[in-house]
Amino acid sequence: MRALELDRAFTLVEPGPVVLLTTHGAGKDDIMALSWTMVVDFTPVLAITTGAWNHSFAALRKNRECVLAIPTVDLLDKVVGIGTCSGADTDKFARFQLTPVPASLVKPPLIQECLANIECRVIDIVHQHHIVVLQAVAAWIDSARQEQRMVHAVGDGTFIVDGRKIDRRKAMAAKLPPGV
Amino acid sequence: MRALELDRAFTLVEPGPVVLLTTHGAGKDDIMALSWTMVVDFTPVLAITTGAWNHSFAALRKNRECVLAIPTVDLLDKVVGIGTCSGADTDKFARFQLTPVPASLVKPPLIQECLANIECRVIDIVHQHHIVVLQAVAAWIDSARQEQRMVHAVGDGTFIVDGRKIDRRKAMAAKLPPGV
Repeated sequence: MRALELDRAFTLVEPGPVVLLTTHGAGKDDIMALSWTMVVDFTPVLAITTGAWNHSFAALRKNRECVLAIPTVDLLDKVVGIGTCSGADTDKFARFQLTPVPASLVKPPLIQECLANIECRVIDIVHQHHIVVLQAVAAWIDSARQEQRMVHAVGDGTFIVDGRKIDRRKAMAAKLPPGV
Repeated sequence: MRALELDRAFTLVEPGPVVLLTTHGAGKDDIMALSWTMVVDFTPVLAITTGAWNHSFAALRKNRECVLAIPTVDLLDKVVGIGTCSGADTDKFARFQLTPVPASLVKPPLIQECLANIECRVIDIVHQHHIVVLQAVAAWIDSARQEQRMVHAVGDGTFIVDGRKIDRRKAMAAKLPPGV
């Protein structure tokens, strides 16, 4: 994995893929699957919706750090598995044969098998709406990885795989942030 | 367009498509393009990030209503056009030949050419993060429409079209809300 410029990291979340979120609490790492995510600014600030109904939330709230890892379609069944069991009774890294890699600035680990990883700090929790606001502080990408297609949760148990890419860079030029 | 059960409307936003957002203010309708969106709960409550840098924000803030319309890939160049001009000096319905259709519960119009439309009321604005929280109150879908593929903004001027669908309903059954 190589370092990804932080001002490009929002492009991993803006298209709306399912993500994996790692936390570290009570001496161990945990993973949850998540598709309720949003870009808030280009630096990037990111928002997620989660709450006490997720086992990971206690560690996220207490230690205020996480990693957003971006899986690709070859990992879909691991993602579904992660989303349907609980860190309360399962070591998800072991069960799903994923490799935790030390992050550079936060305690929760990167996931080696993922396309990209974004290290984040919690900067606010809007408790009324269960919205957690994250500041990304470092990002990593495995550009050499063969499978690059992300996957999108419909929310009804089906998933949409990335199809073809359409280039509208020229038409969008005036709206793109510098360096993207 | 037929009415869509409200408790299924989150499935239009969860996969992360580019959306169009209509507002009504100062006697006229406006449209903006948006991909900074998130599901907050299944009812659904939805969040978007926007602010005074968007012309539509003044009407959204004042009248506290909008429609989230879901375009498909055949509409991509209209979406890009809408995203790169301003309602301050452009009647976007006229310029992009889109048809406003009266909504059932809110003043901003549905967009007839879109796959689906979600009527929303603003329930909160988290000004610190420019996050606007919406309660959907009605939803409409054009299931007979031939093109159903949504499109996802990468944020660098490229867009990803929906590819194939993978069914994991059985594995996800325990996690799906009732009726979905």
